[in-house]
Amino acid sequence: MACLFCRIAEKSVPADIVYEDSLAIAFLDHRPLFPGHLLLIPQSHVETLADLPASDTGPFFQIAQRLERAIESAMEADGSFVAINNKVSQSVPHLHVHVVPRRKKDGLKGFFWPRGSYRDDAHRESVAAAIRQAISAQSL
Amino acid sequence: MACLFCRIAEKSVPADIVYEDSLAIAFLDHRPLFPGHLLLIPQSHVETLADLPASDTGPFFQIAQRLERAIESAMEADGSFVAINNKVSQSVPHLHVHVVPRRKKDGLKGFFWPRGSYRDDAHRESVAAAIRQAISAQSL
Repeated sequence: MACLFCRIAEKSVPADIVYEDSLAIAFLDHRPLFPGHLLLIPQSHVETLADLPASDTGPFFQIAQRLERAIESAMEADGSFVAINNKVSQSVPHLHVHVVPRRKKDGLKGFFWPRGSYRDDAHRESVAAAIRQAISAQSL
Repeated sequence: MACLFCRIAEKSVPADIVYEDSLAIAFLDHRPLFPGHLLLIPQSHVETLADLPASDTGPFFQIAQRLERAIESAMEADGSFVAINNKVSQSVPHLHVHVVPRRKKDGLKGFFWPRGSYRDDAHRESVAAAIRQAISAQSL
């Protein structure tokens, strides 16, 4: 079995597991942004958020809520950062939610990438229209 | 009513809305990381992910899944970035999920912050233990 996170889930690769149930497992990222940085993964192999079965989204993100509260308490944090990289910048192709404690003076002020703008109103409106059309085209 | 995102939800402040239902609304971030950068918010005012009623987590993140698929299609993206800032780096204190199209050569290689490490095994294990305890202490 090649997937690192599947191997962590099946306990053939060790990890500092902090939570586990039949749906998901959470463990320390070994290269944390800050101590207490967790990764929450589904036990079953899916690659991206969009691939998670719809019926699992509620239980899965309720665990993310629990982890958010837990790291804010355990790490005496002021807040948290919850993030998912889908396909691009995704180091392991098994869905993982980063749950990271943040502090007001942790050196990461504001958002972490330069923000841009739309060229003009027409550009912005054309982007919105394309996305609306893509949403409409989806089967539910 | 002071909250900017509540005003967008009630349509007293204009926004490029791409999706709306009784639970949530999604619109273009006006200062996008990349064109097509969406914000998904609950219609009701809650501040953080942990504050979202547990019964809403499933429907809410199913919308995030739909938006992820839509922006990848509409923006011809290779992947996406889904992120929530809770309290720290949170510009508007109304829960908002960033859903951002990503491309392989968009200039944002790897994760976006320097990653660290634990001082030693004991440090790492003590952090894991503190988080486990905080999870156990939560009422479900």
